[in-house]
Amino acid sequence: MTTPAHRPAHDGTSTPPVRGFSDAEYARRCHDVQTHMVSTDIDILWLSTEADIRYLTGFLTQFWQSPTRPWYLLLPQSGKPVAVIPAIGLSCMQQTWLDDIRTWSSPNPVDDGVSLLVDTLTELCPSLATIGIPMGTETQVRSPFNDIERIRQSLGNVQWRDATQSVRQVRQIKSAAEVDKLRHVCAIASATFADVPRLTSVGMTEIDVFRAFRIACLQHGADDVPYLVGAAAAKGYDDIISPPSEHVLASGDILILDTGCTFDGYYADFDRNYALRTVDAATAAAHQRTWDATEAGLAIIDQGHATCAGVFAAMQSVLMPDADHQTTSTVGRLGHGLGIQLTETPSITSFDQSPLQPGMVMTLEPGYSYAPGKLMVHEENLLVTETGYELLSVRAPRDIPVID
Amino acid sequence: MTTPAHRPAHDGTSTPPVRGFSDAEYARRCHDVQTHMVSTDIDILWLSTEADIRYLTGFLTQFWQSPTRPWYLLLPQSGKPVAVIPAIGLSCMQQTWLDDIRTWSSPNPVDDGVSLLVDTLTELCPSLATIGIPMGTETQVRSPFNDIERIRQSLGNVQWRDATQSVRQVRQIKSAAEVDKLRHVCAIASATFADVPRLTSVGMTEIDVFRAFRIACLQHGADDVPYLVGAAAAKGYDDIISPPSEHVLASGDILILDTGCTFDGYYADFDRNYALRTVDAATAAAHQRTWDATEAGLAIIDQGHATCAGVFAAMQSVLMPDADHQTTSTVGRLGHGLGIQLTETPSITSFDQSPLQPGMVMTLEPGYSYAPGKLMVHEENLLVTETGYELLSVRAPRDIPVID
Repeated sequence: MTTPAHRPAHDGTSTPPVRGFSDAEYARRCHDVQTHMVSTDIDILWLSTEADIRYLTGFLTQFWQSPTRPWYLLLPQSGKPVAVIPAIGLSCMQQTWLDDIRTWSSPNPVDDGVSLLVDTLTELCPSLATIGIPMGTETQVRSPFNDIERIRQSLGNVQWRDATQSVRQVRQIKSAAEVDKLRHVCAIASATFADVPRLTSVGMTEIDVFRAFRIACLQHGADDVPYLVGAAAAKGYDDIISPPSEHVLASGDILILDTGCTFDGYYADFDRNYALRTVDAATAAAHQRTWDATEAGLAIIDQGHATCAGVFAAMQSVLMPDADHQTTSTVGRLGHGLGIQLTETPSITSFDQSPLQPGMVMTLEPGYSYAPGKLMVHEENLLVTETGYELLSVRAPRDIPVID
Repeated sequence: MTTPAHRPAHDGTSTPPVRGFSDAEYARRCHDVQTHMVSTDIDILWLSTEADIRYLTGFLTQFWQSPTRPWYLLLPQSGKPVAVIPAIGLSCMQQTWLDDIRTWSSPNPVDDGVSLLVDTLTELCPSLATIGIPMGTETQVRSPFNDIERIRQSLGNVQWRDATQSVRQVRQIKSAAEVDKLRHVCAIASATFADVPRLTSVGMTEIDVFRAFRIACLQHGADDVPYLVGAAAAKGYDDIISPPSEHVLASGDILILDTGCTFDGYYADFDRNYALRTVDAATAAAHQRTWDATEAGLAIIDQGHATCAGVFAAMQSVLMPDADHQTTSTVGRLGHGLGIQLTETPSITSFDQSPLQPGMVMTLEPGYSYAPGKLMVHEENLLVTETGYELLSVRAPRDIPVID
């Protein structure tokens, strides 16, 4: 197969984009969410997760690693969002575009922001009738269950409405500035994968290889490597989500590394497969087949007006030409959205009829079981454009690379 | 002040402990949780977070970074827990001590594990009357809000009971094998902080310094550095949760680095302060005062039978000798538990009357605002023992180190 001419060649040496976003971009994001809110009669949106709060404010901190404190953001139908957060976050939140930041001393075992949240809700929305929170698939409310119950009781007859789509439909379409960050971090990941043959050899443990990969990724300019999973096993692996083990790489092992590394809070997410010294015929063929499946998915996107289900069917027809194209591997899907989370909506599945719209950044991740206990998974990252797509990851070779 | 003789000298070169835990350890953990469940009439425990599920199973994967799929664990009053998880996790979960693992193909937009969870609950507990879930402070239910509602409706009149204490009281007391991992990862962090003067110089950006720190931490043997926050600013910083900026380090800057790095899923969490070339008198004094506050906290623990509130009062009396000892900095507390999460219970606060029990691993984190817009925060990690404590971090010097 040939490589289309519109595929760029990344080399990982691009100049880093400017960090952060303009106030105008945050205002546009909020306005777009508010348009959805108005059309679905949501008076105010209550957000509680890292991704949603960062998307509308720019509040970027690894402090979310601590489960101790809840953090809240309220978005009325017009105007800027209002933060209701622990005092420890005040200085960091003051660096964002927000004007109205309310804090309490947290942790507080009796009232950990509950009354401040309720008071702020009713102040911002005196005739409060409907609160929106994301309730659908892939969402969570990051608040203790007891606090959610207390807030519901405090607000009495207020109607709670699922605001999943209000946030999701806006977040799915990346701005040019977001794409710059995603393009950059994918280039970093590509450059790191290009180093793997130099960093890896028979006799190293998986742990050694993973550590070397993480360090190389940081040296290429990643801020962090929150996700690195994979495996190495004789003539193929059967598990792609485990941490590295003390398994010593041997000739004939197939190694997969799947990374989610970040720049300014935006993720690359793709994998690469390697054979140690020699490759068995079944694995070699499986690598080609997943590569071909990706080609089939890319071709559909390139034609324009593709849906997730259409891309799924095109890839599945290559992976499982004799099956009904509705079954899938244990992974459950063949790709997903990508952005400020390692995985975002939509999903490349038989049931997701979402159109692939310009500005969506997606992974194509065809995978299948090519022999009992043997998985092959292959992944690329791309931007959907007006005219087709732009690959953000440097395209893998069709033949699995062999590390000497 | 003198350094007590029972403080060990870590140098970061310790041999890594064996990864994972024995089946007997998981059985003991479950048994201890089940004892609490029986005493509080909880028929079955429903867990949904990474930390709780890993604690009872050993299921360790960074796949939790993806918000797409829910993961569940059910613990009856006796016997092993039962996993109800997406099929993508089967192979990884099969490596744990569990026997009963039930999977569904996820993501599923119509029924993402809800009916499998409900069916498994009722099968395991035919006369199901009370389900326990952690609902209290510092907990979350990692499930879409809509799914929680569906599960509640499906189960009808079953009573939902707060199981926060059933899990928390067991997790707070670390086993010898857990302490081995925590001791090791704290030694890695100590060795990395010892490198900071060599890695840091005037003219570097914060981003450069943070990247060098992360790489050194991995080189010293950390598996990952999920948490690294801090700041550098002239004559002192005012924000300790932000990511690094492009601020160029200058003479007179005060640099704080606060890391949470991991080994086999266990965290070190402490910070260190440095002055670039020169230190102003107010900052130098604030560093000494926070160090002295730590000494006061350690002395209380060393006497035995300390409570969190007692340690808080001892440290606060050094930080704010003229105040009422009940106020606190914006951080909201002066330390916390440590283990498989960056922050765990209990909290070193005025209101937490928890006794410090042997086997607890804690941070002492005295901090205060020593001038307008100037914070000083100082942190050590320790194990509470039968006879006092064992420092897990190499004790910081009382005088802030000056980097030339």
